[in-house]
Amino acid sequence: MDVNVTEVGPRDGLQSIRNILPTHKKCEWIDALACAGLREIEVGSFVSARRVPQLADTAEVVSYARGIVGLDVVVLVPNLQGAHAAVEAGAKKLTMPISASEAHSLANVGKTSEQMVEELRRVKEYLHFKSSDYSDETFEVEVGISTSFGCSLAGRVSEDHVIALAVECARAGATSVGLSDTTGMASPTQVRRLFSRLKIELGAQAGAAHLHNTRGLGLANALAAYETGVRSFDSSLGGLGGCPYAPGASGNIVTEDLVFMFEAMGVRTGVEFEALLRARELLRAALPLEPLYGMTPEAGLPKDFVWPSRF
Amino acid sequence: MDVNVTEVGPRDGLQSIRNILPTHKKCEWIDALACAGLREIEVGSFVSARRVPQLADTAEVVSYARGIVGLDVVVLVPNLQGAHAAVEAGAKKLTMPISASEAHSLANVGKTSEQMVEELRRVKEYLHFKSSDYSDETFEVEVGISTSFGCSLAGRVSEDHVIALAVECARAGATSVGLSDTTGMASPTQVRRLFSRLKIELGAQAGAAHLHNTRGLGLANALAAYETGVRSFDSSLGGLGGCPYAPGASGNIVTEDLVFMFEAMGVRTGVEFEALLRARELLRAALPLEPLYGMTPEAGLPKDFVWPSRF
Repeated sequence: MDVNVTEVGPRDGLQSIRNILPTHKKCEWIDALACAGLREIEVGSFVSARRVPQLADTAEVVSYARGIVGLDVVVLVPNLQGAHAAVEAGAKKLTMPISASEAHSLANVGKTSEQMVEELRRVKEYLHFKSSDYSDETFEVEVGISTSFGCSLAGRVSEDHVIALAVECARAGATSVGLSDTTGMASPTQVRRLFSRLKIELGAQAGAAHLHNTRGLGLANALAAYETGVRSFDSSLGGLGGCPYAPGASGNIVTEDLVFMFEAMGVRTGVEFEALLRARELLRAALPLEPLYGMTPEAGLPKDFVWPSRF
Repeated sequence: MDVNVTEVGPRDGLQSIRNILPTHKKCEWIDALACAGLREIEVGSFVSARRVPQLADTAEVVSYARGIVGLDVVVLVPNLQGAHAAVEAGAKKLTMPISASEAHSLANVGKTSEQMVEELRRVKEYLHFKSSDYSDETFEVEVGISTSFGCSLAGRVSEDHVIALAVECARAGATSVGLSDTTGMASPTQVRRLFSRLKIELGAQAGAAHLHNTRGLGLANALAAYETGVRSFDSSLGGLGGCPYAPGASGNIVTEDLVFMFEAMGVRTGVEFEALLRARELLRAALPLEPLYGMTPEAGLPKDFVWPSRF
């Protein structure tokens, strides 16, 4: 594979919609996503079930998804308590959102950025303890720096601050630190500038691009990130979790269009298009009232287009 | 201005929809587009009024648009007869679509690509005659090579053939020759490759990128073209003229999102966003049943975003 596409629909997508998908439907969907060749799926989060009832069954979903051969199961945890629950459920790969904007950080997790870095240190300590406990286990903690490209509450976010925070997270032991365009404010120029700086500062610890399509620039930003050397991308099937803007104003960048772009560029994603469409149909059947975004599924592949298989 | 954005909605957009916009509404809309800072607008075409009744009033529209100070008025002509009508109506800038795919060429204009190049030569001769007639008049003929990136009828289109055809058109006297992704099949890699070759072969005669968003890659392709040195882009307000794919599967790239991308990159378009939104509202009021695309108008500008004025 030339790029790693992490499907975040089961977490980022489902948490943003009203309907609660039953556990067995989530598992079927995750199965279909894995069948399509997605090797990394963010399946849920360990947060307050009162705040996010859509993901209250994350432990069960993790337990199911772990059984899928070759799949990297990722869960979001905002704190040490979440990390406990994640490890208990059998998760090996955790992701923590740490916001560059204080306003967003407080609104999102009720803690300042500094407090979140402290939380990351505690999570790392705990995982270190756990991996010495079970000698064959290793854990990874990815960090995504939220609002890296601007914040709908605070407006502009200092790029120096974003990079300094990323460095701090890397020093605190994050396996990788990526940058998130939480509210879809990034431009290709900014994406290039920030990911270049991230790479220079963090080297191999520089992480994924988590981009949104709020203003239609999602794929252009993904292209800019790819050109800067980013090889890990988050996206959501059908752009699930779209903002209330219509038409086409999805939240996360759309997995179907992202993988089409890469494959059309000759960049292998490991994903099969037909199988991905089956996962989309399954999602549509499970959430018939939810608008699904993505243009390639509607238009179909171009005539004579050769999609490399993942084998 | 760092880039030239040509609004093609009044031609490419209106020809693709069922409703026929009354002439005075077209003129109001063109006024609003010019007010927003768009300096080049394709206002109609001189084709069979039976085939494209939506544009039957092009002569009147040209006559009106010529009165707008500082505006470059462009009309599409498929043949010498169209050029006669265009010049008679007072147009100075003509654009001719010449298709790289024989199947598309025959379906679109009933002529082969070679016959179209012959037509271009006749148009050039006629304009040469006309400009010596009226000594203060000069005419420009832009060519757009349709289906440059693939054809929904013929499938793959030879890139060598596209470039050879572009060279032939340049030699036949086209002021500039651009490349059109008529059916939205291009990828950023292909855009970069073909526009690089075009630039090498044609130098200053290398023309505009006419891109579609059929598979969601429109802005990523525009970014790739910009990076390759292209500085002229066609787009359509509200993505008007979208394909029957839903949701969000617009035809032409959306002017609002394109100019937002450029301005967010610090690339000046000369367009003012608020005034562009007024042109959009005017269009919405005139065509209430037509879906309008574009995400930036729905999401609004990012907090603290500074949009350079055109002055």
